[in-house]
Amino acid sequence: MKKTLQEIAAIVGGRVAGDEAIEIDGLDNIAGAGAGDLTFAVEPHIEEAKTCKAAAVMLPEGIEDFPKTALYVDDPRAAFAKLLEIFTPKLERPAEVSAKAHVGKDVKLGQNVTIMPFAMVDDHAVIGDNVVLYPHTYIGQYAEIGDDSVIYSNATVREHCRVGKRCVVHSSAVIGSDGFGFTTKDGVHTKVPQVGIVVLEDDVEIGAHDGIDRAAMGATVIGKGTKIDNLVHIGHNCKIGANCLIVAQTGISGSTTVGHNVTFGGQVGTVGHINIGANSVYAARSGIIGDMPEGVFCAGFPVQSHTEWLRMQAAMKKLPEMRKKISQLEKKLAKYEG
Amino acid sequence: MKKTLQEIAAIVGGRVAGDEAIEIDGLDNIAGAGAGDLTFAVEPHIEEAKTCKAAAVMLPEGIEDFPKTALYVDDPRAAFAKLLEIFTPKLERPAEVSAKAHVGKDVKLGQNVTIMPFAMVDDHAVIGDNVVLYPHTYIGQYAEIGDDSVIYSNATVREHCRVGKRCVVHSSAVIGSDGFGFTTKDGVHTKVPQVGIVVLEDDVEIGAHDGIDRAAMGATVIGKGTKIDNLVHIGHNCKIGANCLIVAQTGISGSTTVGHNVTFGGQVGTVGHINIGANSVYAARSGIIGDMPEGVFCAGFPVQSHTEWLRMQAAMKKLPEMRKKISQLEKKLAKYEG
Amino acid sequence: MKKTLQEIAAIVGGRVAGDEAIEIDGLDNIAGAGAGDLTFAVEPHIEEAKTCKAAAVMLPEGIEDFPKTALYVDDPRAAFAKLLEIFTPKLERPAEVSAKAHVGKDVKLGQNVTIMPFAMVDDHAVIGDNVVLYPHTYIGQYAEIGDDSVIYSNATVREHCRVGKRCVVHSSAVIGSDGFGFTTKDGVHTKVPQVGIVVLEDDVEIGAHDGIDRAAMGATVIGKGTKIDNLVHIGHNCKIGANCLIVAQTGISGSTTVGHNVTFGGQVGTVGHINIGANSVYAARSGIIGDMPEGVFCAGFPVQSHTEWLRMQAAMKKLPEMRKKISQLEKKLAKYEG
Repeated sequence: MKKTLQEIAAIVGGRVAGDEAIEIDGLDNIAGAGAGDLTFAVEPHIEEAKTCKAAAVMLPEGIEDFPKTALYVDDPRAAFAKLLEIFTPKLERPAEVSAKAHVGKDVKLGQNVTIMPFAMVDDHAVIGDNVVLYPHTYIGQYAEIGDDSVIYSNATVREHCRVGKRCVVHSSAVIGSDGFGFTTKDGVHTKVPQVGIVVLEDDVEIGAHDGIDRAAMGATVIGKGTKIDNLVHIGHNCKIGANCLIVAQTGISGSTTVGHNVTFGGQVGTVGHINIGANSVYAARSGIIGDMPEGVFCAGFPVQSHTEWLRMQAAMKKLPEMRKKISQLEKKLAKYEG
Repeated sequence: MKKTLQEIAAIVGGRVAGDEAIEIDGLDNIAGAGAGDLTFAVEPHIEEAKTCKAAAVMLPEGIEDFPKTALYVDDPRAAFAKLLEIFTPKLERPAEVSAKAHVGKDVKLGQNVTIMPFAMVDDHAVIGDNVVLYPHTYIGQYAEIGDDSVIYSNATVREHCRVGKRCVVHSSAVIGSDGFGFTTKDGVHTKVPQVGIVVLEDDVEIGAHDGIDRAAMGATVIGKGTKIDNLVHIGHNCKIGANCLIVAQTGISGSTTVGHNVTFGGQVGTVGHINIGANSVYAARSGIIGDMPEGVFCAGFPVQSHTEWLRMQAAMKKLPEMRKKISQLEKKLAKYEG
Repeated sequence: MKKTLQEIAAIVGGRVAGDEAIEIDGLDNIAGAGAGDLTFAVEPHIEEAKTCKAAAVMLPEGIEDFPKTALYVDDPRAAFAKLLEIFTPKLERPAEVSAKAHVGKDVKLGQNVTIMPFAMVDDHAVIGDNVVLYPHTYIGQYAEIGDDSVIYSNATVREHCRVGKRCVVHSSAVIGSDGFGFTTKDGVHTKVPQVGIVVLEDDVEIGAHDGIDRAAMGATVIGKGTKIDNLVHIGHNCKIGANCLIVAQTGISGSTTVGHNVTFGGQVGTVGHINIGANSVYAARSGIIGDMPEGVFCAGFPVQSHTEWLRMQAAMKKLPEMRKKISQLEKKLAKYEG
């Protein structure tokens, strides 16, 4: 969508200082705005906006000597929110089961459900009220999706798994793939049946391409309110607590228990069969190789306290210098001994 | 599903000691069992079960003074297996090609094939006996799926690729995406056509979100019996040996050859164009930057023997202390020299 | 496909020295060729080909004393290219919108578009000329796909996102999933609406299972000609420059700006909200934790110059030896002091 600054001024009831004919094709914040964008600024960001790349800046009345084309309005925030709705039209979608979707036998469908074309709900599944299933989602046999949850395109919820209320499962996520369990005899690996399930409690968000493996027996559990970023692996039988944040590309090995309110930065890894205490933060790339207490801030691989990690990193940079000093000391001492 | 302990006792022919009215809604092992679960215990796990969180524990006759509600049976393992089948109903699915699937022209379909709604088998593909294709699988032109293989939802097997017998390809895996090959001139990258294929030999398991790139020319090969966990990247032209285990989030760069029976822990990485010998284990996070012999146990980045890695890690923790000692030595020596 | 060497000789107009009855079922380069394969060799690779595993080698006339079965032709490269076309039949596909696809209302379709079964183009989307949409692709409302782009199976382009001309989006990639943005109060995380989009400029290639998150506001941008390998995460509001190469399993955190012509090796990670200068190379596993200048070659975590990293790695291997030396120095000095 493109609009001239003049057209935009008419929409928000503002006044242009500069070239009214500028064409605006996007909206962004000060740092992100490029050549065709409109941004907005209020104190204390007016100074920063003077050198931004935006085509024009929406400002409150009273800002003088602004060096770029400006659009003066009463309330820049409110005006920007109004423009966002115009530049990003709301999605419209009837709450209905598409004739091009497939709903199996003995499925329970709640009220006001949206099932888009090519979504498939397999036999005996239970779909709660107001659930939205995007195209190419697959909800397996006996699986349950709680009220008000959204499952995006190409995501899978395999048989018997349970998704809570108000959950968001992003595109191509897989809930309930088999855990990685094998017995090995004479070098040949034989699959251990993975007969458990995955339970996502209420208010969980699962990122694009997350894989949450089903338990060998029992359940892999993601606690209420936990939010998981993209490309995260959760092994079978993990029990992740409530309100955790798990940043992209982290991997939690099987049968690991994590307390509530734990943050894992990006690309963290853990071994399996450990307990990680609540209320903790693990910096990006942490490698956790054993049980961890509550309330810690850690980093590194093998993981240590963040303070110790900083000290060790500082010392590592001095390593070549340390080698040199040791060599000098040896020479001096040899001179005395000689 | 919920059943009272009394109902469960009737099913397995057992005797309850404690509250028969307890409602059981899940089954799990001792460590994983939560408030509504039933677990079971036999020696040497009886002691551990005394303090578990399960609502009730199934025990063999003869165990006395058990502090929790117990369900006594002749053979707890057998009874538990029976309950697992009741709590997790078997999936029923006719072996048929759904009228809502799409099968292209000149496709060869074996006996007893299951093709679920919205699966697509493209022209000239070959599907073996007893193959199961879940919804939203895409089998490309001239691709082949061997007998008894299962391809889960949203997985892709691109054109000309070959999947062996008894393989399992998990949801959203991609077999045969283009290798990452470009020529660069004046800073501009031009795609090198990737005209090779992927061959999965028999008994291979491919995890959710694995990407196995097709060869530039020839084949990327995953050897017989090799099992790959989730979110693993195998670059073009790799030749992975038989009976390997590749744990989650590992990446093997292009044209790398791996011998048989090699285990890669999670989040391992390798450079390309190297040979990694057979019968070896690489710990999680190993970073392999050159050819490796057979029969090693390694760790670290750059990779080294596991023993050396442990020694180096121990020394690293002493680094701040070492810096202090060097400084003290320098002062003492300066005193002598002064 | 299988052909005898005699049949192949007839196709390319060559002469066999050795067993004409050998059955060839594949073509590969010298290093990759296995027992049933034909390869080819020209100088300086003739020597290497003498010990390769191929069933036969195609050679130029004039090479004598070759120890393996050979097929002599005028131009081995040209003959091999001809055979590649025969062994790998070209894909045939009419440029048409399948009756089994779903195209929503108010969609603009260009000329010569291919939309395969079970692909879905949602309302108000714009599809350019010669675009190919594989099965199970989902193109969201108001999304745009530029001329000559190919979107492979199970990929998602969410609402309002824009894909440029001549782009390739590989299977199961997700363009425009929500950025990972939450506000936290009393330990409970509340989603920040992600109302921005993703823009892929022209000639971009997106790997299998890449997740490119939509901006919180404004756009996440992948610059013209940038090529991204598999399983890469690009956080919301990132601005990636032109002609970058991003190798597999790398993660770029949100709001990071990357200049043009930057190469990230595999499994690299960056923190968010930083600027990474143009014309640089970051080795595999680099961990970038702050702003970076242009024109550097770096490695390590935290990242440092590649030269310093090599020096530090060398010193680290000497760590146990350094500990011993310090201990010896302390003893000697104690002797003098005593």
